[in-house]
Amino acid sequence: MVKHLSVHTRGQGLYEFTEAVTALVRETSVREGLCTVFIRHTSASLVIQENADPSARRDLDRWLNRLVPEGDALYTHITEGPDDMPAHVKAALTATSLSIPISDGQLTLGAWQGIYLWEHRRQGGAREVVVHVGS
Amino acid sequence: MVKHLSVHTRGQGLYEFTEAVTALVRETSVREGLCTVFIRHTSASLVIQENADPSARRDLDRWLNRLVPEGDALYTHITEGPDDMPAHVKAALTATSLSIPISDGQLTLGAWQGIYLWEHRRQGGAREVVVHVGS
Amino acid sequence: MVKHLSVHTRGQGLYEFTEAVTALVRETSVREGLCTVFIRHTSASLVIQENADPSARRDLDRWLNRLVPEGDALYTHITEGPDDMPAHVKAALTATSLSIPISDGQLTLGAWQGIYLWEHRRQGGAREVVVHVGS
Repeated sequence: MVKHLSVHTRGQGLYEFTEAVTALVRETSVREGLCTVFIRHTSASLVIQENADPSARRDLDRWLNRLVPEGDALYTHITEGPDDMPAHVKAALTATSLSIPISDGQLTLGAWQGIYLWEHRRQGGAREVVVHVGS
Repeated sequence: MVKHLSVHTRGQGLYEFTEAVTALVRETSVREGLCTVFIRHTSASLVIQENADPSARRDLDRWLNRLVPEGDALYTHITEGPDDMPAHVKAALTATSLSIPISDGQLTLGAWQGIYLWEHRRQGGAREVVVHVGS
Repeated sequence: MVKHLSVHTRGQGLYEFTEAVTALVRETSVREGLCTVFIRHTSASLVIQENADPSARRDLDRWLNRLVPEGDALYTHITEGPDDMPAHVKAALTATSLSIPISDGQLTLGAWQGIYLWEHRRQGGAREVVVHVGS
């Protein structure tokens, strides 16, 4: 099964969409298999992170913003705005696809793991994610 | 097939578990397929690296420790210890899942590639990994 | 289906091979499934990036070269040349495997996404990539 999801973002940061993926897995009735999440953008990415304390996600985003700042004199690709080239670098350093095994009909995520879309542009929007569930 | 593995770590660094994955693949009798390894933690990660010279792995771990030091004034998520937030950043920069094609019943790893668990906490422990083998 | 591809590189930088993967997917006649690309090296990696403006790729490579320079006093693994240990670090920070869902017989890549091999050694060569297509 392949399904498209839309994840809405409102600027830089991590947006959890674990529930939407869980619901798709349930729909398929696959008991044992593999769920793959893929993002169709190069200025946003995917990450599995702690879903307990929001301060961990905020620190993550601030840390990456400091490592890959806007206005870096190195950039020549600047026509799409000051946050565009940093967004490409951040996407390259994080994940475009993630695969999670399914056991007993459920994602085998750890107790504190959530699936996040990491928005790297200042102005977010509707981001497209594709989910594959196979056996 | 989905199987759980436990990888024991004794502090920061790379721990090879290629043999355990190879053994699971052999058990399945899959001749052509895909093997996916997933880690159920957000303070440890996965990496495929050179299994020849141990100095490459030591340098890798030291390099990442320098890029993501403890005690960074940026961190607000500090209640779980000084090595917790750096561990989350390191996990976000490396891999949570890895997929390796299977051909002739064997992982198609390159001659010098090994599968490693990268422990980012000072005190290691039993880390949970899930392996999926499909065709 | 598992197939081996060879991607030729002529030094550091990003080399697109989307067409070769697309052709393999077409060959399989899989309408709905998953395509996984895996690189059999630890000094080159994979990345999905913008295939529109080449300046974005050049900036990416220059940015990573600055983050992970040659001649770093931290390195002890130096017998294979000054570009070897930086190449391992760069590979660890980027992807060794990528998975892309297939829908209607086509990779669900976004409009501007291309699949690239990222060569991290100064002297390139023939790099081996393995592609798995499943349903």
